[in-house]
Amino acid sequence: MAEEIAALRWDEPSDGGAPVVVLLDQTRLPVDEVELVCADVPALVRAIQTLAVRGAPLLGIAGAYGVALAAVRGDDVDQAADVLAAARPTAVNLAYGVRKAQGAFRAAVEAGDGGDGAAGAALAEARRLHADDARASARMAEHGLRLLGELVPRGGYRVLTHCNTGALVSGGGGTAFAVALAAHRSGELRQLWVDETRPLLQGARLTAYEAGRAGMPHTLLTDNAAGSLFANGQVDAVVLGADRIAADGSVANKVGTYPLAVLARYHRVPFLVVAPTTTVDFSTPDGSAIEVEQRAGGEVTEFSVPHAAGSGPGQAAVAYAVAPAGTQAYNPAFDVTPPELVTALVTERGVASPVTGDSLAELVVR
Amino acid sequence: MAEEIAALRWDEPSDGGAPVVVLLDQTRLPVDEVELVCADVPALVRAIQTLAVRGAPLLGIAGAYGVALAAVRGDDVDQAADVLAAARPTAVNLAYGVRKAQGAFRAAVEAGDGGDGAAGAALAEARRLHADDARASARMAEHGLRLLGELVPRGGYRVLTHCNTGALVSGGGGTAFAVALAAHRSGELRQLWVDETRPLLQGARLTAYEAGRAGMPHTLLTDNAAGSLFANGQVDAVVLGADRIAADGSVANKVGTYPLAVLARYHRVPFLVVAPTTTVDFSTPDGSAIEVEQRAGGEVTEFSVPHAAGSGPGQAAVAYAVAPAGTQAYNPAFDVTPPELVTALVTERGVASPVTGDSLAELVVR
Repeated sequence: MAEEIAALRWDEPSDGGAPVVVLLDQTRLPVDEVELVCADVPALVRAIQTLAVRGAPLLGIAGAYGVALAAVRGDDVDQAADVLAAARPTAVNLAYGVRKAQGAFRAAVEAGDGGDGAAGAALAEARRLHADDARASARMAEHGLRLLGELVPRGGYRVLTHCNTGALVSGGGGTAFAVALAAHRSGELRQLWVDETRPLLQGARLTAYEAGRAGMPHTLLTDNAAGSLFANGQVDAVVLGADRIAADGSVANKVGTYPLAVLARYHRVPFLVVAPTTTVDFSTPDGSAIEVEQRAGGEVTEFSVPHAAGSGPGQAAVAYAVAPAGTQAYNPAFDVTPPELVTALVTERGVASPVTGDSLAELVVR
Repeated sequence: MAEEIAALRWDEPSDGGAPVVVLLDQTRLPVDEVELVCADVPALVRAIQTLAVRGAPLLGIAGAYGVALAAVRGDDVDQAADVLAAARPTAVNLAYGVRKAQGAFRAAVEAGDGGDGAAGAALAEARRLHADDARASARMAEHGLRLLGELVPRGGYRVLTHCNTGALVSGGGGTAFAVALAAHRSGELRQLWVDETRPLLQGARLTAYEAGRAGMPHTLLTDNAAGSLFANGQVDAVVLGADRIAADGSVANKVGTYPLAVLARYHRVPFLVVAPTTTVDFSTPDGSAIEVEQRAGGEVTEFSVPHAAGSGPGQAAVAYAVAPAGTQAYNPAFDVTPPELVTALVTERGVASPVTGDSLAELVVR
C-alpha cells in the first residue's frame, strides 16, 4: 500500500463496471489491512454499523457517497438516504452528509435532469464534501505548522498526541495528526509520542498505524507514562483534536486530554487543539454545559480482542476479564479542558490564541 | 474465603502431617482464587519465579519461611538458602529474609541446639519478620488515618490510589491500601478510586480484588480518567506507595504516580506517600540519581492474557497485538515525584511533612 491512507474512496472500474465505495476496514487494524468493497447501500450501512468506517467527518462523506451509489444504481434514493442517515443515529455528520447529497439529487430532478444527471449531481456533492474536508485538513496542517514554528523556533519538534485524528477519520489528512504529518514532511518532526489512549486504545491501534505508514518517527506509550516525558523535558508541544468546543473555548475531547493540559501547563509546554470551526458549538455556553457521556464499564473491566488470531471477519469479539466480576467502573468518554489551559486553537480559518469567547467568535463568525 | 487476605501462611496440619507454606496464587487473580501449597523448597522457588507470590516485603517473608521449611524437613539448609535467595536475583528483600532465617538457624546450631531446635529458630525468625511487617502495616495505617483526619476534617474520604499496595504484597495490610482500609473500618471511606495502572493493570487485577474482598466502596478507572475526577472535585486525597525514596525525599513509584502528583497540586488535593522507612535509600542523594528501569515494549504493544478461559495453571500466556508489529514503545517501570509535590510521607515511625532531606533523616535515623 502507498504511504497515503485512503480510508474511503469512490471507485469506478476502468472496465466500465458499476461504481463502488471502497473502505479500509478499521475493525481489522492494526493487524490486517483489508479493503471492504461496498457495491450497494446495505453493504455500506453494514460497514458503518460495524465501525469498519468511523470518525465524524469521514462518516459524513461516507453517507454522501452512499446516496450517490443509490442514485447511480437506480435505487430509491429517498429510502436509501433514510436508511443511511439512521445507520448510527447519534452521528450528526453522517445525517448531514446524507442530506446534502440527497438535496443535490432532488434539486437536479426538479430542474428536469434525468436519472443520470441527478445521480451525477449527488456524486458531485459527495466529492465536494470530500474535497472540502481534505482542504480543511490541509489548512489546519498549514496553520498548525506555522504556529509550531513560532512556539518552538529551534525546530526538531517532539510532539505528544492523544487518540486518533488522522486520515482514518477524515477526507484529508485529519486534524492534529495532519499537523504532525506536515511537521514530518517539513523535516522538523523529531518524535511523535503516541498515547495509547485507554480504554479503546485508538492511539495504539490507529495512530501508531498511521504514523508507521507515513514513515514518521513515533513511539507508543501508556497514557500515564506521559508524565515522565514532561518531567524529562522530552515534549515540545501537545497537539490533539476536539470533539466539541463550547462558546467560551472549553474543549471536550477524548478522556485523558485534561491531565495532559495540566501537565503541559505545569511544565510550560504549548498545548494546541486542532479542529475545524464546525466543532465550535455556540449553543453550549461553557465547559460545565457539556454533558459527558459515561460509557459501559466493560470497556475498562474487560479487554476485548476484536479479531483473535484465526478468527474471521464478523466473528464476535472475545472479552477477557481484567478486574473481578462485578467491579464498578468510572468510564467517561471524554473530559473537558478549560480555555485558559489551551495555548491555541488551530482551525482551517486560522488560529485563536489566547482562546476566549471573543477570539473564538471572531475566528468562526467573521 | 474470609475478608482477610492471607497472601502467604505457614500451615502445620492438625493431624501432625509435615508443615507447608500456603500461597494465594497471584497469577490467577482476579479470575480464580487458588491456593498453592508448597511442601518443599523447589515448589516455593517455582512459585517465586512464576510470580505466584510477589511484592518486596512478602518475598522476604516467603524466603524466610522457605529456609524454615528446609530446616524442618532436614534438607541442607545452606544449599536451600542459596537457591531461594537466587530465585529472583534483583529482589533485595527476598535475599534479606532468606539470610535472616539462615542466620537464626546457624546461630542455633552453633549454640548446640539439635536439628529440631535450629529449625524452630529459623521458623521463629520467619514468624518474627512476618509479624514485624504486619506491625509496620498497622502503624502506617494508624498514622495515615490520623493524617487523613487532619487534612480532610469533614470525613467521608474519597481516596484515589494507584497500583497495588495491600495484603497481596505484605505480611500485613500493606502500605497505602492499609490506610484506605483503616479509613473504611473507621466508617469514613466514601470511595476508593482505583487506577487500573497500565501497562500491567495491577490496580484492576489486584487492588480491585482486595477492595472487593474487604467490602470497601470502590470504583475502577483508566489512569487517564483521574483528571476528570480532580476537575469535578471528587478526590479528597491521593494515597499511594513508593518503590524507593531518595535522601532528598524524591519518590520513585509505579509509572503514573507523577501525573497524579501534578494533578493533585493543581487542584490543591493532599498527596500522601505511604511506605516503610526501609524504603528510604540514603545512598541515593536525589531524584536524578534514581535509575528508571525501562521495561519491554511488548507490555504496551501487546495485551497478554495470562490464563485464557479454559486454560490450566502453568499454561503459557497468550499475547494479542494492540499496535502494529514492530511499533517502538516507551515503557518506564516507574516515575519520580519531587518532594515538593508530596504533602506527606507516612511511615511506620510517623509522618514527615513537609518532605525534605531533614524531615526524612529525622524520622528514619532517630
